[in-house]
Amino acid sequence: MKVKCIRSKGIAHNSYIIESGGEAAVIDPRRDFGVYLDHLIINELKLKYIFETHRNEDYVIGSQSLSKLTGAGIYHGSKLNFEYGNGVSDNDEFYVGDFKINALETPGHTDESVSYKVSIPSLSDEVIMAFTGDLIFAGDTGRIDLYGDQHKYRLSSMMYDSIFNKILPLGDSVIMYPAHGAGSVCGGNINSMEHTTLGFEKRNNPSLQASTKNEFIQMKIEEKHRYAPYFKQMEIYNLCGFHGYEHPPSPPPLSPAEIKKSFMNGSCVLIDTRAPADFSTAHIKGSYNIWLDGLPSFGGWIISHNDNVIIVTYDGYHCLNKAVKYLFRLGYDKIEGYLKGGIESWYLDDLPVESISVLTVDDLKNKIESNEDLEILDVRDDNEWELGHIRGARHIYVGDLESTELDLPHNKTIVVYCSTGKRSSLAASILKRKKYQNVYNLMGGITVWYKAGYELI
Amino acid sequence: MKVKCIRSKGIAHNSYIIESGGEAAVIDPRRDFGVYLDHLIINELKLKYIFETHRNEDYVIGSQSLSKLTGAGIYHGSKLNFEYGNGVSDNDEFYVGDFKINALETPGHTDESVSYKVSIPSLSDEVIMAFTGDLIFAGDTGRIDLYGDQHKYRLSSMMYDSIFNKILPLGDSVIMYPAHGAGSVCGGNINSMEHTTLGFEKRNNPSLQASTKNEFIQMKIEEKHRYAPYFKQMEIYNLCGFHGYEHPPSPPPLSPAEIKKSFMNGSCVLIDTRAPADFSTAHIKGSYNIWLDGLPSFGGWIISHNDNVIIVTYDGYHCLNKAVKYLFRLGYDKIEGYLKGGIESWYLDDLPVESISVLTVDDLKNKIESNEDLEILDVRDDNEWELGHIRGARHIYVGDLESTELDLPHNKTIVVYCSTGKRSSLAASILKRKKYQNVYNLMGGITVWYKAGYELI
Amino acid sequence: MKVKCIRSKGIAHNSYIIESGGEAAVIDPRRDFGVYLDHLIINELKLKYIFETHRNEDYVIGSQSLSKLTGAGIYHGSKLNFEYGNGVSDNDEFYVGDFKINALETPGHTDESVSYKVSIPSLSDEVIMAFTGDLIFAGDTGRIDLYGDQHKYRLSSMMYDSIFNKILPLGDSVIMYPAHGAGSVCGGNINSMEHTTLGFEKRNNPSLQASTKNEFIQMKIEEKHRYAPYFKQMEIYNLCGFHGYEHPPSPPPLSPAEIKKSFMNGSCVLIDTRAPADFSTAHIKGSYNIWLDGLPSFGGWIISHNDNVIIVTYDGYHCLNKAVKYLFRLGYDKIEGYLKGGIESWYLDDLPVESISVLTVDDLKNKIESNEDLEILDVRDDNEWELGHIRGARHIYVGDLESTELDLPHNKTIVVYCSTGKRSSLAASILKRKKYQNVYNLMGGITVWYKAGYELI
Amino acid sequence: MKVKCIRSKGIAHNSYIIESGGEAAVIDPRRDFGVYLDHLIINELKLKYIFETHRNEDYVIGSQSLSKLTGAGIYHGSKLNFEYGNGVSDNDEFYVGDFKINALETPGHTDESVSYKVSIPSLSDEVIMAFTGDLIFAGDTGRIDLYGDQHKYRLSSMMYDSIFNKILPLGDSVIMYPAHGAGSVCGGNINSMEHTTLGFEKRNNPSLQASTKNEFIQMKIEEKHRYAPYFKQMEIYNLCGFHGYEHPPSPPPLSPAEIKKSFMNGSCVLIDTRAPADFSTAHIKGSYNIWLDGLPSFGGWIISHNDNVIIVTYDGYHCLNKAVKYLFRLGYDKIEGYLKGGIESWYLDDLPVESISVLTVDDLKNKIESNEDLEILDVRDDNEWELGHIRGARHIYVGDLESTELDLPHNKTIVVYCSTGKRSSLAASILKRKKYQNVYNLMGGITVWYKAGYELI
Repeated sequence: MKVKCIRSKGIAHNSYIIESGGEAAVIDPRRDFGVYLDHLIINELKLKYIFETHRNEDYVIGSQSLSKLTGAGIYHGSKLNFEYGNGVSDNDEFYVGDFKINALETPGHTDESVSYKVSIPSLSDEVIMAFTGDLIFAGDTGRIDLYGDQHKYRLSSMMYDSIFNKILPLGDSVIMYPAHGAGSVCGGNINSMEHTTLGFEKRNNPSLQASTKNEFIQMKIEEKHRYAPYFKQMEIYNLCGFHGYEHPPSPPPLSPAEIKKSFMNGSCVLIDTRAPADFSTAHIKGSYNIWLDGLPSFGGWIISHNDNVIIVTYDGYHCLNKAVKYLFRLGYDKIEGYLKGGIESWYLDDLPVESISVLTVDDLKNKIESNEDLEILDVRDDNEWELGHIRGARHIYVGDLESTELDLPHNKTIVVYCSTGKRSSLAASILKRKKYQNVYNLMGGITVWYKAGYELI
Repeated sequence: MKVKCIRSKGIAHNSYIIESGGEAAVIDPRRDFGVYLDHLIINELKLKYIFETHRNEDYVIGSQSLSKLTGAGIYHGSKLNFEYGNGVSDNDEFYVGDFKINALETPGHTDESVSYKVSIPSLSDEVIMAFTGDLIFAGDTGRIDLYGDQHKYRLSSMMYDSIFNKILPLGDSVIMYPAHGAGSVCGGNINSMEHTTLGFEKRNNPSLQASTKNEFIQMKIEEKHRYAPYFKQMEIYNLCGFHGYEHPPSPPPLSPAEIKKSFMNGSCVLIDTRAPADFSTAHIKGSYNIWLDGLPSFGGWIISHNDNVIIVTYDGYHCLNKAVKYLFRLGYDKIEGYLKGGIESWYLDDLPVESISVLTVDDLKNKIESNEDLEILDVRDDNEWELGHIRGARHIYVGDLESTELDLPHNKTIVVYCSTGKRSSLAASILKRKKYQNVYNLMGGITVWYKAGYELI
Repeated sequence: MKVKCIRSKGIAHNSYIIESGGEAAVIDPRRDFGVYLDHLIINELKLKYIFETHRNEDYVIGSQSLSKLTGAGIYHGSKLNFEYGNGVSDNDEFYVGDFKINALETPGHTDESVSYKVSIPSLSDEVIMAFTGDLIFAGDTGRIDLYGDQHKYRLSSMMYDSIFNKILPLGDSVIMYPAHGAGSVCGGNINSMEHTTLGFEKRNNPSLQASTKNEFIQMKIEEKHRYAPYFKQMEIYNLCGFHGYEHPPSPPPLSPAEIKKSFMNGSCVLIDTRAPADFSTAHIKGSYNIWLDGLPSFGGWIISHNDNVIIVTYDGYHCLNKAVKYLFRLGYDKIEGYLKGGIESWYLDDLPVESISVLTVDDLKNKIESNEDLEILDVRDDNEWELGHIRGARHIYVGDLESTELDLPHNKTIVVYCSTGKRSSLAASILKRKKYQNVYNLMGGITVWYKAGYELI
Repeated sequence: MKVKCIRSKGIAHNSYIIESGGEAAVIDPRRDFGVYLDHLIINELKLKYIFETHRNEDYVIGSQSLSKLTGAGIYHGSKLNFEYGNGVSDNDEFYVGDFKINALETPGHTDESVSYKVSIPSLSDEVIMAFTGDLIFAGDTGRIDLYGDQHKYRLSSMMYDSIFNKILPLGDSVIMYPAHGAGSVCGGNINSMEHTTLGFEKRNNPSLQASTKNEFIQMKIEEKHRYAPYFKQMEIYNLCGFHGYEHPPSPPPLSPAEIKKSFMNGSCVLIDTRAPADFSTAHIKGSYNIWLDGLPSFGGWIISHNDNVIIVTYDGYHCLNKAVKYLFRLGYDKIEGYLKGGIESWYLDDLPVESISVLTVDDLKNKIESNEDLEILDVRDDNEWELGHIRGARHIYVGDLESTELDLPHNKTIVVYCSTGKRSSLAASILKRKKYQNVYNLMGGITVWYKAGYELI
């Protein structure tokens, strides 16, 4: 009797394999399903059920591929017209070895959200585990803004009932397994505890401390979240079923000449996944800089599902492998190839490289003090901006930059910053593509600015 | 902030890696420490502490090797004069990233037993995890008989206080991480739940349902456990520090001729790790049959730490690998080699093979009904024997068989049985070595006997 | 500049990856192409060409899957109307990095057989490597009987010319890479050298020592080979292209009850892959015994491509994995599952097991000398039979036994033997299915019979 | 019967496992011996012999660890007083399964150099393989300068005899297995063929085309090779036996603060293994830049065996792993740790970073044409320098730069270049440590200079 958590970095997604007596169920499988299949085979398990807690909006769910290969049935909430699988209702019962699993309809994050409680009748009637999907996380609760402002009241009201009248009453001793960990876009303040209990959350989760239902609703309504453009596509895929590749593609190495040709034709988007400092020194003109572990969060703001993607990475297939998996999980299958030999091969072919200037916090401080003519751009999210920013800065979220018309001359000096220099490097690469010539990235961002003792307002 | 459980099959031992903010601690590491080191390296963690919950008696602890390679300090209870490491006292405090770890002296299983409670001050003062060693398991409590009968009262009394006055008061919502899972010799009725909470155990652990301290003590005193001969050696190793190989040995393939020579010289013990049915058909005369996954539990009853061990297994290195690891964990380093090509190579060299006859339950039933002159030997443990056995059977625990003088003529027909036929195959191989010629193993054992509807008394 | 040989056990098939300057070609890829793809990715290679040396009859070629995933073109002989890929003619030229590769039409084994010679123009005009497909092996030449007796003369005549007028003249120093190693059904006497040169073969390959063309032809015509029933299907697949699974299936564990049900319905064939001695002790009635590494050679005599296969193996997924791969390479995709927990789980469910009696060579010698009424069956191939067999034995090749009507009463005592006891165990399992009740397998076979000093005629 | 080549990147070292009939020998094992042990175990081989072709000077040989763990004997030439193993003389004979192996004393590279010829008596008396150590490579012969100028004549004369009178007469068809591939410091012009024959080499190896013995000797004497400082240590280790760690160390992650402290104390050397372009942007002051795959060749010029090494690398353990292995093979065990989180963590801690300016070839051209006051430094080796360099440049080999006093003012502008920009980045980092403030690295080096059409003299 065992629960194994499969974590997907970047999207901070948790899926689970639960097993007992040679049988297994998987909850919210990711698209690259090899990890489940390997576990089943090595441990000689028969997969009986695939449970989805809700229609996900931040990644492509792998239920259908896994079902096809194992014969296991798919189950999800009945309050949405999924084009595949089976709907479950309150207290529908499933058995996996010694585990008894009951569905609990827990609307809030979405209308059709479902939780699953687990007991072991041979030992006790007490519930020992609850899979809470995007309802409750460690330290937070699920966002309720996905349907738009007009639904926020209704959803948070239902969420309150789901949490306070259905889940928490299961008991303080119940181990809680949520669908996301720290860093997910599905909750803003999820902490990094990977194991918690309903009792601990009840008393310590800031999101559960409202003293009345109204207070809870008010708090949820005021939350701010970003809605990445690719969510729309995920919602369609996860409603209707997705029919892409079964396995992540194996993109070929491309020579600088091949990439130059593709890129000149305008038929591809170039994503450079190296660290901002390395990107700044030398990169291919027109490429976006999304640092490798930022790809799951920011790829979806930049790349359209119709784009052919070419990847620039450090030499070595480990980085490439990671990039491909990250994109695959978001439904991006059209990966044309990667730059063989890394950026070095580009300039060894005597092809021109671009650079982006970097500023230290001291450099910026000096420029400000000497009243240089600067546009300072803060590209962090609203919550971060509100906690404190550099005097005189203008705020545009990095994800919005591509679609925003900046009312600035193209030779204007622009300094972009974020918390550490990563998102601002993406921002700088966007500005460069928009023909701004004097773009600077603040190395270390607000973090170092603050450590250096400079003012935040 | 994460806890990873490393399970060692056979001895059902749980060790843990806890990590937060790039730092880590390991609790009760096993001897083959590669799994910890790999985890540290891959996840870029710095090991700060190695905690031992108590001096273990069923395996060689890996603290010293791990400490040597990483520089991490070793910590264990101060009520025993360990020849290495540091003693801890109640509430000694350690920090691993965001985790605050406090030692709790919890004598009972042994005098120096320690538990560790964990909280995350940045989130809450509440304790969220407890590592309970051999004090409480899922569904059971630790054995208190290791020091002999005269200490049982004292130890169970201390155990009561440790559990009811120190651990359970930490709160129902605390997740509990014990040092053993189902199948361990350190507790008779550990269930197979791998995740539980103090609240769940308080209400459902049969061993915690005593209504008074005296009732608890009485229950513990009446428990029956086996004390395997190798425990003595483990206690010395784990007190004084063990200085064997750093890595499991890589025993060479041996030809039938080489094995014959070693075996004839009396310089080795031959352990055949195949399934009983396969052993019964053809094996090398004089070999013991301990099925592969039984090696951790029964190797220690048969093999002395001075023996040179030769292994017979199915062809293929996966089985060999497993056998070597199992033995390594119990401190057996002198593995001379293994039979290359498996038993088939033995008989293809025209060397004689032995066999052991098997009986089906119907065969046995017929023999009994036709009043054949039989000795029926039940080799299960006391608890199993008392739950029901075959009429007319005699009870000798398989572990005691080697050292027991049977008062029987060597041509007497002996039928051995256990629950499924595995331990009885070991028993049969022991009887064969003792020159009993007519030994039968009951295939399927009591399990099939009972399914066939035959009587148990 | 590198050549890597990928060997497939059982069918003794060699495929090759050749690489130079970041480019690669694959020769005769097997169906489970993961090994090529991994090599390409890890070594950052771009696959340009897939070369086939001929239409294979003993396994499903993986060219099409590999081509689909990498975009590499497929090339094979133009003397056959393949429904995919491109035909090559003498001296067609290809470049892979610094390698120059030329096709050489070398009919003999088949009409469309092609060899490939390789030189490195930047170093020398000399040929340094030759990929000879099924034309020449280390110690043998390819079989010429696949089209039937009426084509043997024609094919061996062409083979002579291909070898003596095209390949050997490439030079003594040329390293030779054939498509098969020892144990292949495509040549009877391939030796186990895995690296050889044309010069070494010219002087030492017994098959190349004929002093005239006629002598060569005569020798080839007299060779005896077996034509396994599944060859027919392979020829169709490899001519027309095969459209099965892309990846080997992951068959689920099945309970004894599930297997019993499937088997009773007659909807599946049960293949027990354990060693003969273990099969003999206890197996499911009606199962065939093909030892694991015999599956690639004998699976194709027993299993039809319409059968649902259920596998019995030793516990543990390593054996299962191997069995599934072996079958996948022969085009068998319909693997329903495997017996969870091995044969032990069968008899622990109180389900009946069958056994096959084994005889030692002494037992058989005694039976013969005491003139017992026996049928002795030699199931080896013609070449082995002719080298010496037991007096009084009858010869039927194991592969022919299923389809042969034996003119014997069903209670007749039959002793089967082969060289070691493996093929005879398959034979015994076939006879059992044909309702022969007194079937004995000779343990150790002719090998031990001969070592024991008994007579062969 | 099989030969497996184990290649060690960077030092371009080839070791070999040869196997036949369940027995094996290893030739010139590297220090991290896991690869051999794994191969032996997985393939169920018994290691009988470890052969060394000569006392190596470019890496620590792994013979003793491997011997200790397997019991196999070590064999090497008898013309040197090794403090371990056994000496072999001409035609000493060894058997590994069907292989017959004969030693051949072939002095030249060193006095005690030995080759091994292999035949398979069961097939033929002909030799089929020769392991030629550092005597002959694909396209080159071994260097003869290791004992100093006064021995060059004697050694090349012996080398001529060894090659022309002992090895080449073995026959054109013999497959040759040398101890090094392209890129080794043991031969200047080894080509990248990984499989060759004596016949091919005889006719095509430029080093074997001398028409007389004198011509050969003359050619060898004129060759230029570098003698890295660490060679001296390797020669001692490989003569006397090395007693370092058995397994590569697992260095811990270190925080910027910890590294700063160690470095300030002067107790360590900091090696930054990132690509030159990335190093140039931001690095820790005082660190050396040796790009990862340059570590085996250039680590030995910079690091003393007494140094504590701290590594800076890209985030992720794959790079670290590689760096540690590279250093381990050269006998460097004192690796204190690595910068956790990469260079980003350094500047996020508000610690100062250094940078090195880069020039494009156009920048340099402009500077030269505008007669800027420049010192241009070519740090390539003598052979490269002589083939063509930039007008006005001064030549100092990168390996000599540390120990060379430059007679230049510290504020002088220095432009360093090599073939691509890697060795010159190491050179630039050395100059920076020597307090030169205006150091520029020529991006792309001579390669791009030449592609851009600029003059070489």
